[in-house]
Amino acid sequence: MTRIIMHGCNGKMGQVISKIVEEDNDASIVAGIDISDHIDNPYPVFTDINTLDVEGDVIIDFSTAKAVPSLIDYAKSRKIPVVLCTTGLNDEQINLVNEASKEIAILLSANMSLGVNLILNLVKKAAQTLTSANFDIEIIEKHHNQKIDAPSGTALAIADSINASLNNEYSYTYDRSKERVKRDSKEIGIHAVRGGTIVGEHSIIFAGKDEIVELNHSALSKDIFAVGAVNAAKFLSQKSEGMYDMQNVIEGN
Amino acid sequence: MTRIIMHGCNGKMGQVISKIVEEDNDASIVAGIDISDHIDNPYPVFTDINTLDVEGDVIIDFSTAKAVPSLIDYAKSRKIPVVLCTTGLNDEQINLVNEASKEIAILLSANMSLGVNLILNLVKKAAQTLTSANFDIEIIEKHHNQKIDAPSGTALAIADSINASLNNEYSYTYDRSKERVKRDSKEIGIHAVRGGTIVGEHSIIFAGKDEIVELNHSALSKDIFAVGAVNAAKFLSQKSEGMYDMQNVIEGN
Amino acid sequence: MTRIIMHGCNGKMGQVISKIVEEDNDASIVAGIDISDHIDNPYPVFTDINTLDVEGDVIIDFSTAKAVPSLIDYAKSRKIPVVLCTTGLNDEQINLVNEASKEIAILLSANMSLGVNLILNLVKKAAQTLTSANFDIEIIEKHHNQKIDAPSGTALAIADSINASLNNEYSYTYDRSKERVKRDSKEIGIHAVRGGTIVGEHSIIFAGKDEIVELNHSALSKDIFAVGAVNAAKFLSQKSEGMYDMQNVIEGN
Amino acid sequence: MTRIIMHGCNGKMGQVISKIVEEDNDASIVAGIDISDHIDNPYPVFTDINTLDVEGDVIIDFSTAKAVPSLIDYAKSRKIPVVLCTTGLNDEQINLVNEASKEIAILLSANMSLGVNLILNLVKKAAQTLTSANFDIEIIEKHHNQKIDAPSGTALAIADSINASLNNEYSYTYDRSKERVKRDSKEIGIHAVRGGTIVGEHSIIFAGKDEIVELNHSALSKDIFAVGAVNAAKFLSQKSEGMYDMQNVIEGN
Repeated sequence: MTRIIMHGCNGKMGQVISKIVEEDNDASIVAGIDISDHIDNPYPVFTDINTLDVEGDVIIDFSTAKAVPSLIDYAKSRKIPVVLCTTGLNDEQINLVNEASKEIAILLSANMSLGVNLILNLVKKAAQTLTSANFDIEIIEKHHNQKIDAPSGTALAIADSINASLNNEYSYTYDRSKERVKRDSKEIGIHAVRGGTIVGEHSIIFAGKDEIVELNHSALSKDIFAVGAVNAAKFLSQKSEGMYDMQNVIEGN
Repeated sequence: MTRIIMHGCNGKMGQVISKIVEEDNDASIVAGIDISDHIDNPYPVFTDINTLDVEGDVIIDFSTAKAVPSLIDYAKSRKIPVVLCTTGLNDEQINLVNEASKEIAILLSANMSLGVNLILNLVKKAAQTLTSANFDIEIIEKHHNQKIDAPSGTALAIADSINASLNNEYSYTYDRSKERVKRDSKEIGIHAVRGGTIVGEHSIIFAGKDEIVELNHSALSKDIFAVGAVNAAKFLSQKSEGMYDMQNVIEGN
Repeated sequence: MTRIIMHGCNGKMGQVISKIVEEDNDASIVAGIDISDHIDNPYPVFTDINTLDVEGDVIIDFSTAKAVPSLIDYAKSRKIPVVLCTTGLNDEQINLVNEASKEIAILLSANMSLGVNLILNLVKKAAQTLTSANFDIEIIEKHHNQKIDAPSGTALAIADSINASLNNEYSYTYDRSKERVKRDSKEIGIHAVRGGTIVGEHSIIFAGKDEIVELNHSALSKDIFAVGAVNAAKFLSQKSEGMYDMQNVIEGN
Repeated sequence: MTRIIMHGCNGKMGQVISKIVEEDNDASIVAGIDISDHIDNPYPVFTDINTLDVEGDVIIDFSTAKAVPSLIDYAKSRKIPVVLCTTGLNDEQINLVNEASKEIAILLSANMSLGVNLILNLVKKAAQTLTSANFDIEIIEKHHNQKIDAPSGTALAIADSINASLNNEYSYTYDRSKERVKRDSKEIGIHAVRGGTIVGEHSIIFAGKDEIVELNHSALSKDIFAVGAVNAAKFLSQKSEGMYDMQNVIEGN
């Protein structure tokens, strides 16, 4: 049973995590920290981290950048690992985190989704195995009609992860309507579908001789970052000092 | 029970049709016509159409353009409908066919696939219903890596069918990676995936507020044109003179 | 421009509809009615329907059963069509509604989702066209792991809609693991996938000779009933007395 | 460049492999062996293996069980690895193969498809990572309407591979229509879709909190076993004595 201290427990993601942990047999939240204490939680909430007197195995942080320094101080003093999900840290705060990782375990990831990180991991082996049998690689991502960048950052991260595992020999193709040419075997086609309120879907297609392997990820809401954070917490609670990311969680090391 | 005369019975498609009809309880081939008579068929084969003395309800033709004039003469003399699948007719031959359609029923279609023609039909109602609720439209097509044109003719035919049912107010978008802009509600995104030996897949996506409707067609081989021809034959055997296409089969009129 | 009066404007669905209509160029909410007036809306809100003095073309109702009689009275007196989305009406209330439909247009539907109703409509033509070419029919539905009934009511409604269009000759199959037999051509396989928090997905698969046609519906949230209600309102605002359902909206008549 | 000797080069699979290798830059067939020499191949063909005087790095075998003993003798005498795809070996022949593996590298696999074996490999990591975050597991397989067993052997192999990686704590569920109960978290739902001429599709669905990961494999023909054999040959040509299977190819060791 992993005992979690939830830093920022009364924010949107803190509350999502609270619900997820309630249904988890291997973890529980033993205390929350939040400057605002207007919500009724099934665990004690402290408005000042320094008054916290409950023992925990790991801290999950979904708060604000300016709350991070006092959090790091506390975690170092108690030797508690921290899953740091707050974004927008400035250089000084990042330095502080890096320094702290020499004393405690800290996990920091560009994308906290467990599923996306698993896909990033699986596509590497898939790409290595299947391109040796001349499979072609294509990526389709789908997002809502308000998104202005294309392709998505996640689609590019997946393509880059594949490409890195293939000696970076591949180039990316976004449009085939301009030329009448056969597909180059060293290209990755990337397609950005936009429509409605689609939260986010990514398909990686490996197409070979009479055989297709496809890896898909589909998100129904941003709550998926909370799922990843809880899983990261279980993993990190067992770890000694160092910087970790979600790939460590996937690899289990 | 529809009695089919198979013109070009010993060609590749003629043989595929023979197999399909064998498993069909509502149709049978009563005779074949082919200049080459080297295959053992479960029906009599005539090398000269004018010696054919078996009664049939409809002729399916998968032969060569130069065999079409004598076929048309025969069909007119016996008042038998013709599903004409031979391609590459010249202007003179096309005139002949048009003239004949004043006396007998003739079916001629750009794409004989039953599934593709059904999709062409269904997308119109889907587009009218769903765009009135502000759904966005996207098309993904997938083909093998040797195909040099993109998007596929079928994808464009689908887009055109949708657009025609929406007062042609939509434009087509093939690439979103060049600009950082929101999707225009009057665009149809068209994406050409290429890989391996994919025979042909088409997905039409209607994405709205928290709801997605998708119509997919997938081909495993070119035998699908034979399936369409047999179904067209059943339909046409009941029809009087006139020019028909696969949309009449779908609509049943 | 359809002028909507929103009955139950401050409930969950009333608010969802308010947001949807704000982004709709062809409709606007001109007034709301709600006994609770604690929300700031971009339209005037009346706590008593009898004080409402704004002219509208149609009323959307997402309220409570006991508020329905006074709503019906009001609608009859002003000859305004009503899209009635409140569920759980008792026999007396249903009688009231049926009687009122002799004087005004009323729309009442088992499932308000536009996409589901479109699918219910499209599968009929698909089934008729494709079964005549010996395509097999299978349905896969996916829902969250808390759902206790299987298959879903919508999956059964789709199967029944298909079956009705095929002279009710088909039976339903839920399990193929018990017997070693070939598939019967007159069966519809129905598969209930359960997992995670899937809101609801339905796939109808028509598989023939080397060709597959698939119709899919996917819901991201229950807000889809609001989308259907707005579309129903646009349709109904043009209609004279009578009982309507979502199939009338799809068919446009 | 891997130099392949094709044993059974004029059989159906031998010819498929010949075509695949022609388009492969990293392999070539340097000689074929077949008792029947009626086909024109771009490499020399020997009707008696003992007259073969061309040097190769690996032998691919798609022949008949009774031809295996002389093949094994030859391979041992020349110390050449063998990818053994012939099925239906009797106990004596299997013993022979096992004995030979003490001297040369031999690869033997229940299913030679590269894609299926990759999926068997990837699902293990996916299952371990995602079930720790309470994802549910479901498998859908689709095959043609003539298949009498359900679920498919491959679907069961995938389920078993997943289950083995999860301490065999899971049971399999084939039908949810009989009971009104919530899904058990330790079950794997397995669904057998049957229709048309579908060659074979397998989907493994991991559904969690607002997030779905899916791994799909789709076969267009039985030629996929040839693709696997060629890839196995490239792998095995580098290996010393021992018994190998397709998982070694996937793992690269």
